Amino acid sequence: MSDKRLTPLAASLPASVPFVGPETQERAAGRAFTARLGANESVFGPSPKAIEAMQRAAAETWMYPDPTAHDLRLAVAAHHGVTPDTVILGEGIDGLLGYLVRLFVAPGDAVVTSAGAYPTFNYHVAGFGGELHMVPYTGDKEDPKALIAKAKETKAKLIYFANPDNPMGSYWPAADVQAMIEAVPEGTLLVLDEAYIENAPQGTAPALDTADPRVIRMRTFSKAYGLAGARVGYAVGHPDVIAAFDRVRNHFGLARISQAGALAALADQGYLRQTLDQVAQSRARIVEIAEENGLKPLPSGTNFVAIDCGRDGDFARDVLANLLKEGIFVRMPFVAPQDRCIRVSCGPEAETRLFAEALPRALETARS
Amino acid sequence: MSDKRLTPLAASLPASVPFVGPETQERAAGRAFTARLGANESVFGPSPKAIEAMQRAAAETWMYPDPTAHDLRLAVAAHHGVTPDTVILGEGIDGLLGYLVRLFVAPGDAVVTSAGAYPTFNYHVAGFGGELHMVPYTGDKEDPKALIAKAKETKAKLIYFANPDNPMGSYWPAADVQAMIEAVPEGTLLVLDEAYIENAPQGTAPALDTADPRVIRMRTFSKAYGLAGARVGYAVGHPDVIAAFDRVRNHFGLARISQAGALAALADQGYLRQTLDQVAQSRARIVEIAEENGLKPLPSGTNFVAIDCGRDGDFARDVLANLLKEGIFVRMPFVAPQDRCIRVSCGPEAETRLFAEALPRALETARS
Repeated sequence: MSDKRLTPLAASLPASVPFVGPETQERAAGRAFTARLGANESVFGPSPKAIEAMQRAAAETWMYPDPTAHDLRLAVAAHHGVTPDTVILGEGIDGLLGYLVRLFVAPGDAVVTSAGAYPTFNYHVAGFGGELHMVPYTGDKEDPKALIAKAKETKAKLIYFANPDNPMGSYWPAADVQAMIEAVPEGTLLVLDEAYIENAPQGTAPALDTADPRVIRMRTFSKAYGLAGARVGYAVGHPDVIAAFDRVRNHFGLARISQAGALAALADQGYLRQTLDQVAQSRARIVEIAEENGLKPLPSGTNFVAIDCGRDGDFARDVLANLLKEGIFVRMPFVAPQDRCIRVSCGPEAETRLFAEALPRALETARS
Repeated sequence: MSDKRLTPLAASLPASVPFVGPETQERAAGRAFTARLGANESVFGPSPKAIEAMQRAAAETWMYPDPTAHDLRLAVAAHHGVTPDTVILGEGIDGLLGYLVRLFVAPGDAVVTSAGAYPTFNYHVAGFGGELHMVPYTGDKEDPKALIAKAKETKAKLIYFANPDNPMGSYWPAADVQAMIEAVPEGTLLVLDEAYIENAPQGTAPALDTADPRVIRMRTFSKAYGLAGARVGYAVGHPDVIAAFDRVRNHFGLARISQAGALAALADQGYLRQTLDQVAQSRARIVEIAEENGLKPLPSGTNFVAIDCGRDGDFARDVLANLLKEGIFVRMPFVAPQDRCIRVSCGPEAETRLFAEALPRALETARS
């Protein structure tokens, strides 16, 4: 029952959760997954130096975290060759998206995204009363021109665009993304979610230009850096846009250990390169597995592969359910026609082999 | 410069920060504090078992946290003898206060608190466009009757009341707090911040009654449990109030290591009792130090002592500045006449001794 004291907006919101965690599925099934390949985590783990840094920081947890995340902010800025006032850290990209929507979207304001794109962004837009306008994917890719056209038509405050994309793994080259930035209409801010950018081919990210107020770039330590559990994301953008976060954010929201882990992970670029190689090998292996089963893997610039199961969404949902029953945690796109695919995260050989073994049975059961 | 695309509400907000962290002060001074006694942290540290649990969890940080915080939620519920649907975990009480204000306070809605009470609550109210009404402290205590009267007068959506209080350390016995709960007007929710409740004398907290929709209780692992850096707070309340958080919260905001640390800390009640004894001894020592210097320590049910410096706010600010110059990190109330005090956190003998040595010099300089 809804509480009558809630604001009209809060009362109108569903008690929804953007993603059900694998732990909840495991508890429902009464057993643990044997291969955790559904959340696009880095199953290869973070840098051992990041683990050591977090272990050292554990004893300091009696102290509040630095609310300015000073050391990490400076390190991120130096890493990207930008000034610290163009970087803001937050509780994952999820947390930053919430603050960003709050800052820019008043009730009734238009926001543009792609049908089937990141649901947590949509959750925040709904949560602040924004009006979502969706454009379809084109050829399993988000469509920059359609997004821009829809933003012009609706006078949108924000456009959400992920490059590379989740859940499809597709990506646009930097030149196309830069052209999109140039086309952002006045009064609109482009939210460029680059959570997977480290896994993408060279030439996928346009140069960072923090003098440009039309775009804000979202990055994370959750994917390539293997620190999903630490909840550390960051945004890079124009200083005026970045400064606005300080008006609304939970200043002490970023755990002290998490800051220490991210700082050490960022410093260990050698380990990052090694992980990127492992991910690339695993991606190639998932492509092979898909093809061995007569399925079509889609090109991926991420740490996962979307596999076209060749029929409709009901069939793919069947395949997914069969894999889950075998203890293989994978996920899939929510929206047709992308929901003909399942989405498999990269991982070490042991996990990938379990997937390879289970997939033929999952397909056979779904077909019968 | 403010971005023109911000919502009118966001554009109206100052780029303020509720608290400047000690790290920022240390960087400005060019040296580290020798005694960190200003943030009411548990300088005694968390349970060694909590540290070990966090160190073990560090290697699992590649996994997202459980967004339901299932294990911790069940443990907290069992600890308090309530059902899990009456407990919500969040990124510190700060994070939970933000969500709560967002759920209940629409722009223009009235909210009641005490002048000089927790500024982060005020920050969130301003951040969602609420209209703050303040009542003064009475005898250095928050005034339950005045808060209730103001809530009736203004038809407030929320009343903020901390018991024990920060920054004064004062507290009301359970019977008075229960009487306040009974007097909460229809349409109002009492936010009972009990961050320091473990340090208070027996009989300070009314019994938890999760059938009562008039009050929500805020607790934390940041104070007595010594995990301020982990950012784990929780609220206990009526299931309808608690369920509403799922409409707006950052579901994946609570770091995986933090959940593991809080779970282990909660399980180690023996260590908690030991810490509470240490805090009580330190509190007695701070009282002695104050009296040795001719100052008046106020009664405290917390892990800190407010010391009346005997003159006005300017004098106390002078004393504070002198202590900071000597490397002693302490804070003080913001609002007169409470700002005649400085606020000193409990800590081990080494830190307390540094304070004892610096205080006479700080007073002498301020008097001259």
